[in-house]
Amino acid sequence: MHVFVLAGIGEVRAGDDLAALILAAAESPVARLADGDILAVTSKIVSKAEGRQVAATDREQAITDETVRVVATRVYPGGVTRIVENRQGLVMAAAGVDASNTPDGTVLLLPVDPDASARALCTALRARTGLRLGVLITDTVGRPWREGQTDIAIGAAGVAVLDDLRGTTDASGRQLDVTVAAVADEIAGAADLVKGKTSGNPLAVVRGLGRLVEALQLQQGPAPQDAAGGASALLRPSETDMFRLGTAEAVAEGYAAGYAAGIAAARAAGPVAERSGRG
Amino acid sequence: MHVFVLAGIGEVRAGDDLAALILAAAESPVARLADGDILAVTSKIVSKAEGRQVAATDREQAITDETVRVVATRVYPGGVTRIVENRQGLVMAAAGVDASNTPDGTVLLLPVDPDASARALCTALRARTGLRLGVLITDTVGRPWREGQTDIAIGAAGVAVLDDLRGTTDASGRQLDVTVAAVADEIAGAADLVKGKTSGNPLAVVRGLGRLVEALQLQQGPAPQDAAGGASALLRPSETDMFRLGTAEAVAEGYAAGYAAGIAAARAAGPVAERSGRG
Repeated sequence: MHVFVLAGIGEVRAGDDLAALILAAAESPVARLADGDILAVTSKIVSKAEGRQVAATDREQAITDETVRVVATRVYPGGVTRIVENRQGLVMAAAGVDASNTPDGTVLLLPVDPDASARALCTALRARTGLRLGVLITDTVGRPWREGQTDIAIGAAGVAVLDDLRGTTDASGRQLDVTVAAVADEIAGAADLVKGKTSGNPLAVVRGLGRLVEALQLQQGPAPQDAAGGASALLRPSETDMFRLGTAEAVAEGYAAGYAAGIAAARAAGPVAERSGRG
Repeated sequence: MHVFVLAGIGEVRAGDDLAALILAAAESPVARLADGDILAVTSKIVSKAEGRQVAATDREQAITDETVRVVATRVYPGGVTRIVENRQGLVMAAAGVDASNTPDGTVLLLPVDPDASARALCTALRARTGLRLGVLITDTVGRPWREGQTDIAIGAAGVAVLDDLRGTTDASGRQLDVTVAAVADEIAGAADLVKGKTSGNPLAVVRGLGRLVEALQLQQGPAPQDAAGGASALLRPSETDMFRLGTAEAVAEGYAAGYAAGIAAARAAGPVAERSGRG
């Protein structure tokens, strides 16, 4: 696997043709795209091209507007961290609202439908190059239990996002029972290692994983851009999530329910207990 | 960044000299190690070399024995999923106890101290090659909120695990306030993409990230194997973790406390409320 930056895309503006900008950046001989390549595109430039930079005097209000469900909040000196499920179904801090890399008085929202953005970009790139390419749109998130942030895939087209190894066997012939590799997130992370956060490199090419691009084509026929799934297949529904709420929030929810039940139970049994001296 | 498998290590047995096996595998001209390379080593072979394959008729008991703190449990048809903090401080399903890739009646436990294992391996590899190398020991974990599993670094030596970008500025000169990239986890994920789970390839070389190996040397002086940190720096303490308990467990904890408080409150106020008709 070879991962390299596609340099020279420059500043992206609302309405820009991202596929054209990417292909222009890929004109240099060292960066020429090849069959089976996966493009990892930082969501920021997709958002900018789609005009998602909006006026917002108050970033906190913008976060509230993008929030579908509050997962956890924590007050710290100087502000509050809000981890929420946003309109895209992603659980992330600040709903993915970005106030860096934007002029004062504006914020940058995530693409409305990152999988649709990836499909449009992948379709355009495939049509113009004749190459079997995959596209991932990436963003940066924190994780429970572990320090630091990693990049994940929030949009995908033309590339498998999960590599389902269930039913296959390990090296000694034993069944691997629960392994479904989130390859799209691992690819996004690999791309982050070469893009960095501060270098102004929003594009990376991941070469050597054509099997993941092929697999989708074989499964889906000649129109992988319409493949079911995309990165939304990586979203675990809150109903099946063992961590749908922050611990403090869940304790509070349980406490309120328990308190009400305790009051009710005591009132039902209380006078009897009182009279019989069992209280 | 170039990531490739180091093939041919074969089956690892208790007491094997892992550094020697790795260097033998790196003898081929295509796989020759270079300055700044990072070796990603699947924990399984480290465990095997360290004799962590133990007799266990009951995998569930082995999981219990490795558990320091239960985070969440979920019963499903045919079993129970236990997400716990294990002796290594890692929050993971089944405490990292592995019953695949081992003979019947045995399980494979994680290395006792993965950072120490990485330091020993890194020190041996550096001494025998004269090269500035980094070592990551990797394992596979699930994540809240997202489907699928990714590889993470559970042990590290000679390589920075967190790339702290706080205080640096973005492309437009604005301060980046909260970005600390968990590069060791991203490297582990990149290595997983080439190693796969079933191919019997427990070793990958990640080339092109010498800046992360250098950074540690510059910070730590001539003995990076003694650097503070290692992969344990990626462990978020439960005290500062917003997700130290599963939602169901936290609700139950809150409910029990609330119920007791409700009973107490009703008993304290109840007779008065009863008499005054406010109940």
